[in-house]
Amino acid sequence: MDIGLVGLGKMGGNMRTRLRQAGHTVVGFDFDPALRDVDSLEALVEALPSPKVVWVMVPHGKPTHDTVSQLGELLSEGDVVVDGGNSKWTDDARHAAELGEKGIGFVDCGVSGGVWGLENGYALMCGGSNEDVAKVQPAFDSLKPTDGGFVHAGRKPGAGHFAKMVHNGIEYAMMQSYAEGWELLEAVDLVEDVPATFDSWRSGTVIRSWLLDLLTNALQDDEHLEALRGYADDSGEGRWTVEAAIDNAVPMNVIAASLFARFTSRQEDSPAMKAIAAMRNQFGGHAVHSGAKG
Amino acid sequence: MDIGLVGLGKMGGNMRTRLRQAGHTVVGFDFDPALRDVDSLEALVEALPSPKVVWVMVPHGKPTHDTVSQLGELLSEGDVVVDGGNSKWTDDARHAAELGEKGIGFVDCGVSGGVWGLENGYALMCGGSNEDVAKVQPAFDSLKPTDGGFVHAGRKPGAGHFAKMVHNGIEYAMMQSYAEGWELLEAVDLVEDVPATFDSWRSGTVIRSWLLDLLTNALQDDEHLEALRGYADDSGEGRWTVEAAIDNAVPMNVIAASLFARFTSRQEDSPAMKAIAAMRNQFGGHAVHSGAKG
Amino acid sequence: MDIGLVGLGKMGGNMRTRLRQAGHTVVGFDFDPALRDVDSLEALVEALPSPKVVWVMVPHGKPTHDTVSQLGELLSEGDVVVDGGNSKWTDDARHAAELGEKGIGFVDCGVSGGVWGLENGYALMCGGSNEDVAKVQPAFDSLKPTDGGFVHAGRKPGAGHFAKMVHNGIEYAMMQSYAEGWELLEAVDLVEDVPATFDSWRSGTVIRSWLLDLLTNALQDDEHLEALRGYADDSGEGRWTVEAAIDNAVPMNVIAASLFARFTSRQEDSPAMKAIAAMRNQFGGHAVHSGAKG
Amino acid sequence: MDIGLVGLGKMGGNMRTRLRQAGHTVVGFDFDPALRDVDSLEALVEALPSPKVVWVMVPHGKPTHDTVSQLGELLSEGDVVVDGGNSKWTDDARHAAELGEKGIGFVDCGVSGGVWGLENGYALMCGGSNEDVAKVQPAFDSLKPTDGGFVHAGRKPGAGHFAKMVHNGIEYAMMQSYAEGWELLEAVDLVEDVPATFDSWRSGTVIRSWLLDLLTNALQDDEHLEALRGYADDSGEGRWTVEAAIDNAVPMNVIAASLFARFTSRQEDSPAMKAIAAMRNQFGGHAVHSGAKG
Repeated sequence: MDIGLVGLGKMGGNMRTRLRQAGHTVVGFDFDPALRDVDSLEALVEALPSPKVVWVMVPHGKPTHDTVSQLGELLSEGDVVVDGGNSKWTDDARHAAELGEKGIGFVDCGVSGGVWGLENGYALMCGGSNEDVAKVQPAFDSLKPTDGGFVHAGRKPGAGHFAKMVHNGIEYAMMQSYAEGWELLEAVDLVEDVPATFDSWRSGTVIRSWLLDLLTNALQDDEHLEALRGYADDSGEGRWTVEAAIDNAVPMNVIAASLFARFTSRQEDSPAMKAIAAMRNQFGGHAVHSGAKG
Repeated sequence: MDIGLVGLGKMGGNMRTRLRQAGHTVVGFDFDPALRDVDSLEALVEALPSPKVVWVMVPHGKPTHDTVSQLGELLSEGDVVVDGGNSKWTDDARHAAELGEKGIGFVDCGVSGGVWGLENGYALMCGGSNEDVAKVQPAFDSLKPTDGGFVHAGRKPGAGHFAKMVHNGIEYAMMQSYAEGWELLEAVDLVEDVPATFDSWRSGTVIRSWLLDLLTNALQDDEHLEALRGYADDSGEGRWTVEAAIDNAVPMNVIAASLFARFTSRQEDSPAMKAIAAMRNQFGGHAVHSGAKG
Repeated sequence: MDIGLVGLGKMGGNMRTRLRQAGHTVVGFDFDPALRDVDSLEALVEALPSPKVVWVMVPHGKPTHDTVSQLGELLSEGDVVVDGGNSKWTDDARHAAELGEKGIGFVDCGVSGGVWGLENGYALMCGGSNEDVAKVQPAFDSLKPTDGGFVHAGRKPGAGHFAKMVHNGIEYAMMQSYAEGWELLEAVDLVEDVPATFDSWRSGTVIRSWLLDLLTNALQDDEHLEALRGYADDSGEGRWTVEAAIDNAVPMNVIAASLFARFTSRQEDSPAMKAIAAMRNQFGGHAVHSGAKG
Repeated sequence: MDIGLVGLGKMGGNMRTRLRQAGHTVVGFDFDPALRDVDSLEALVEALPSPKVVWVMVPHGKPTHDTVSQLGELLSEGDVVVDGGNSKWTDDARHAAELGEKGIGFVDCGVSGGVWGLENGYALMCGGSNEDVAKVQPAFDSLKPTDGGFVHAGRKPGAGHFAKMVHNGIEYAMMQSYAEGWELLEAVDLVEDVPATFDSWRSGTVIRSWLLDLLTNALQDDEHLEALRGYADDSGEGRWTVEAAIDNAVPMNVIAASLFARFTSRQEDSPAMKAIAAMRNQFGGHAVHSGAKG
């Protein structure tokens, strides 16, 4: 099929490559002239046959809002916009409504895959009407792994990003699960070969997984992870997952704790623990540690 | 090799089968006459060539203590006892010392595999001296999966059970990770086909794992898990993992929360939340819900 | 001073009484004719001398939005609206801006006190310009306890409701702290007189507090809280506290866990734990508990 | 009454003073000659009339075990040993049994009060037979605050230390409750005067408490707690509380999270978060922060 692709960064660029390897005609636009096929969104839209399908792969928030709005000006009834970025699921209804006024379809699509997607395929979770999804299906079929990795999660806008968001929330907690176990193995002088232990778990255990494969790789390179700092950013999805849980009265201790662990990892010193130290000092004359950490 | 096997329940029985399929000679004893090959521990020991290897596969605590003690009476210098049950890792030093007084070797071995082990092999994590482990290695090689699943975790007694214990702690938290994500998907009316979403995650995503395969299977049988009650037992390993973390000042929010979730799942009503209700009633005249839950 | 009071429910009605006892002239309006002094907002505004001060004490969300909008129509430059309800702090900027277009001042005020406020005074946390707060100060001085309980938390709109929100978040976690301790005392057959133990903690300990007084009262009436169900509602403030923490990357394990405990307390059965049961059943043939809880 | 007091450190020394101020005759022994009244345990026992009451106030574990054993040698039937230190409640049954063989009574007593105890009295929670407790009651009556602060928690050995342990668990979580709230107030640029806000909460609110008084004091001295480091030790009681909860299947998310926060506060860098960073680096090429924190 012919498809427009807006945003040719690490993810978008690799997706263009994978789509072309599958025989699709991709017209790509990016603000960076070195990456793009055409010089403007207008030229991109111009280059596509109708019904036109344009896949947006830019940062969530304003960049996506602006791109969708501009496409709303340029596209026509029957065309489809796909938001494959990391938009918050609540943005999708707004984008769908805005485009829907002109009869333009909208599909939201959560994309997982990172640097492995080009070779192995991207996991795709999409939301939208059956009709709109059908127009993008050939691209979905080529982007996804050969053995699965695609779901039309729901027909309401946001179903795809919501599924992807929950996926990321689960990811945070799974990573924290291994991390806590690893820390305990390291803390107790009993298991001598921790990397070999993780490697052994990759076969026959209940906890075998792709994340375990990755952590095993990392431990085989650097047994005690001495080259790394215990610092982790978080993207919007983890936060939104917990917020959605709160809005829906879903208890979510484990995913929330995983998110909070990332927050803590980025603090030079913990304000909360300063308050603890202050109270302890007041009531017990406990020794106070002052000055900068480290 | 020749090996004695004490305890022929679901796990032990299947292990005997797998060992025999691999060509080993297994002499099994169990209190249940219908399951056993010989009528007594004495007969079991008698039947083995020296150095004798006896694998104990009985419940942890007193049954294991007693069996190890009796084997201590029956075996001789150079023989080896393997504790393949779910013993607490701190029991192993005691068993090793007790047997060591007579020159009998001891290997602790955590075994994972459940009902799938017979066919696919059991993941094995063992602790003990190189010499003792070498005497059991042919059995380990046949019990484990063909593509890995074995580690000699450390030479101190307990290394194997400790590794298995941490494995189970990670397992609790991974299960809770998926469970929380599933609950959120079910709570929000957006993703229409939750089983298909889980199925799609099995390919190309960061969270693909064997547990995801299992949960997907379960959801395909019973989309909303209506036939199940939200009730989960816990074995000793989850508790011991958190206790070991506390003893070693390792923060373990996620695994601990997973354990606590199981405790909560078994309460008809929460005493703590009664106390919350009592306080709310005192200060705010909040409506009080009385009577039994449900 | 003269003050208008909109909303004469349990909180508003008691506040009117306390203000009148202090010598203020209060004109009250409510949709319920049995409670009100005047028959309309128009009559309320009419009855006040300029600069007019109107205190709004209605449910947050639409009722407060509508009341503020109507007062915006009726009041004039130099008048002041106080929102003393449980509004989300993010609503305050909007209300302040709306009223500010006409030169009408706005003060947001978090009010704590429950059924004890009439007698002991209400804790008040307010936000707004010095000028606007000064116009309401005589009412604040009479509503608050004699020995403190008032703060002008900040000059930006929302400072008062934000402070009150955080107060409530802390409240959730403090209640949960006592509740968990109480559950443990009840679970272990060692402390024979738990109510007396709580009573003794009211003097000389680090954990003495008003909440402890309340819980002690409750335990003295019903030692094992048998008349209560472990069920707790949550108001918006607890949720907003955790959301604000997430938005600002503040780790908040304890307050979040307290909120989640309330969610759990309201579930007949836990969907997450059904998923745990499903996975356990798949891999281990663990016994499954089916049917309804209880 | 006459009472022997072993251990005259900060706590023991102040208790001697308070007992003497109340008219009791205290004979004190300590390893430090500068602090003690007599030069040996033998001399201490010698100096007391029968039935002799000896209060032990030394560190838990070996120092307490040894002191109790030596007193067992020196005392006679009808005498009583009080363990007022921070012993683990499970030690008490052993001490009681050891002394009981000779007919010597044993009372375990949790003591709270810190540096404020001398002036305001110590909160006391004790366990032991009615007969043994009665022999110590005059000392209890003088040590405790005038308005309460004493409970005979149970007749089994350990009841007092168990109650004190739970008290400390609650304390950890209450402190964390305020600390998390304070961190959020500091993180958001809205509440301008945080110390005044905490001060205002001391009257009329649901969260007023002695800990709030202390934190308010600290904030008035150092608004942003800039002189402190976010570092908190933990004593045994917090750990034992969570362990007891686990042993009794009591969910304890909030107290456990408070304990884990203290563990985290003492880590220069988090091993668990290194593992998170390692996994993120493997799957996403996320930027890795290397080198030492700070």
